[in-house]
Amino acid sequence: MIRQVPARQVSPAPRTAVVLGTGLIGTSIALALTERGVTVWLADRDRTAARLAADIGAGTVLPDADVARPPRADLAVFAVPPAAVAATLSQAQAAGLARWYTDVASVKSQPLAQAAELGCDLTTFVPGHPLSGRERSGPAAARADLFLGRPWVVCHTEQVRPDAVSAVLGLVECCRAEPVPLAAAEHDRFVALVSHAPHVVAAAMSAQLADAPATALGLAGQGLRDVTRIAAGDTGLWEQILAANAAPLARVLGAVAADLAAVAEELEQSTSASASARLKLLGGLLERGVSGVGRIPGKRGGARAADTVVQVVIPDRPGELARLFQVAGQAGVNIEDVGIEHSPGLPVGVAELTVSPDAVGTLTRALAAAGWPVRR
Amino acid sequence: MIRQVPARQVSPAPRTAVVLGTGLIGTSIALALTERGVTVWLADRDRTAARLAADIGAGTVLPDADVARPPRADLAVFAVPPAAVAATLSQAQAAGLARWYTDVASVKSQPLAQAAELGCDLTTFVPGHPLSGRERSGPAAARADLFLGRPWVVCHTEQVRPDAVSAVLGLVECCRAEPVPLAAAEHDRFVALVSHAPHVVAAAMSAQLADAPATALGLAGQGLRDVTRIAAGDTGLWEQILAANAAPLARVLGAVAADLAAVAEELEQSTSASASARLKLLGGLLERGVSGVGRIPGKRGGARAADTVVQVVIPDRPGELARLFQVAGQAGVNIEDVGIEHSPGLPVGVAELTVSPDAVGTLTRALAAAGWPVRR
Repeated sequence: MIRQVPARQVSPAPRTAVVLGTGLIGTSIALALTERGVTVWLADRDRTAARLAADIGAGTVLPDADVARPPRADLAVFAVPPAAVAATLSQAQAAGLARWYTDVASVKSQPLAQAAELGCDLTTFVPGHPLSGRERSGPAAARADLFLGRPWVVCHTEQVRPDAVSAVLGLVECCRAEPVPLAAAEHDRFVALVSHAPHVVAAAMSAQLADAPATALGLAGQGLRDVTRIAAGDTGLWEQILAANAAPLARVLGAVAADLAAVAEELEQSTSASASARLKLLGGLLERGVSGVGRIPGKRGGARAADTVVQVVIPDRPGELARLFQVAGQAGVNIEDVGIEHSPGLPVGVAELTVSPDAVGTLTRALAAAGWPVRR
Repeated sequence: MIRQVPARQVSPAPRTAVVLGTGLIGTSIALALTERGVTVWLADRDRTAARLAADIGAGTVLPDADVARPPRADLAVFAVPPAAVAATLSQAQAAGLARWYTDVASVKSQPLAQAAELGCDLTTFVPGHPLSGRERSGPAAARADLFLGRPWVVCHTEQVRPDAVSAVLGLVECCRAEPVPLAAAEHDRFVALVSHAPHVVAAAMSAQLADAPATALGLAGQGLRDVTRIAAGDTGLWEQILAANAAPLARVLGAVAADLAAVAEELEQSTSASASARLKLLGGLLERGVSGVGRIPGKRGGARAADTVVQVVIPDRPGELARLFQVAGQAGVNIEDVGIEHSPGLPVGVAELTVSPDAVGTLTRALAAAGWPVRR
């Protein structure tokens, strides 16, 4: 049913585009298109959001349909919630809004099925999903480089015409993203695994904290903060996304729940058994966990083990980090990542500088020579 | 059975101490004690580790018992795995190693029960647990300020003598940590919730990735990396810690598993029901998740919402961050936290600077004046 889109095809940018939905994703796409010289019209049910997007240079607000009409655009981009994609497509096609259509929703099968039910023309519709990797929202957080180097899934259906695919690949190139051709069902299984299930798992862990004693939360470290961070997202939007990918998500969550329930039972039984009994299920799960986390590409798509962390204790006051980075820069060391760990209530922090292993010696010597206490 | 230790008691530092176990925690304690003028002896089953700790200034390697004996120390600190605490205490007391004893294991009830079974003298033993909030290991990662401002649980049993508690509070003060008086059972319930269960939950999510297609993993964003990061820890040590806190951990994991299983079932049923049916369990879990994550104290113990993030696009080359921080420092702005988000494969990154809300205007103006493209 599904053919693969050839990656790295050089596709022309659309000359004109309509972006429906000017949240973070829609506005960022509009900014990228505008930067590449594409004429962009903007619309949003919240006209304030559309005007804000126009104000930051993302395009021109689409005139009301009953007042004036823009010329038919090359490409219409629907940056609307998954449940709104099919209806938006149907209306846009009825109005002859564009030659080609795409969306950016984070689920693909359900909107596609709904569009077919509504009798949409699927020869001009190419479902898409840019993975920006960000959790902020709203047009004010938008930027033209939001998708730079990030994967952008392009789903190629049996019905679609090659010129429509080419137009959407042109959009992806405008945004300087990496096209990833996937079938809709494959896409949905993959994002259930790497995005949707992690969100629910984080929420389930966080939910246990909702009624916990404050003293217990006072013992929390960075590990708990990391595990639960994404659970702070917009629940309304997430509920809609997760519901639209119900079957693949249910499979992953069911598997995680089964693993956790089995380990919980093993732990309960172990309290009555001999203390030296090995916990096979727990040990096995931890091993599989190490194996799984090692397969996640690092920030640069490389293995995360390749970089080394150098720790520097710094006074927590203006200018100290500047001095630190100046020394690193003068030594010609490129810092891949940086984090600061504060000691609660005290004016001292530890900067953790991630550098390539061959730069560790240079950096350590340069920092030590400049008087910084350094540990690897 | 358990009385509370009064917090903030001013306690004298021990004059002499023995640290058994020179991993990250033991060596860091030894460094802190040495810095405060305490005479410290070091021992580890791995004599190389003990010598390395001595080499970095943490104390003197304890002579072999059959060759020479140190004078009886004021305080012995057992920085050994939970399962080894009771036997270590028993042997140390038989040898008259110190006047008072404490440990740093991350579970408290089981070692205490084992020590009672072995007939240890519990009048001189004060179970302790410093929460360093770090995941590195080994003496080379040690530093004297590892516990600075961090919580240090001090368990005060019915049998213990006040002078033993006072000595351990002196140790906590030497390490500049914050003493948190808790009953052993309470401690174990709390760490099951904020440390042990999150570890297993992260492992269970990561385990699903072990056999996933590489293309799926290529779609991963920062959310998945955060949720799974701690699953990369030392499985042998973690299995032992988790097994020693089996009952409290089983309760939390059982509750998380039940929530996930219920949501998975609701999602499965929703695919056959009407698309507009509300997913009450999923929505409720997401809401509880937001509520729970909001209760975790921030890096400074304050609310995490108080700080604001300013984004700056930076070329990914040496010296750029130095220039950025210099401008911030000259403007008198203190940067609370910093992260860099790289765009895979391309020489551009986005620095995210966390500052207090009243500094945002100053920072934004200073960066803009210096030519940086800034977004909030």
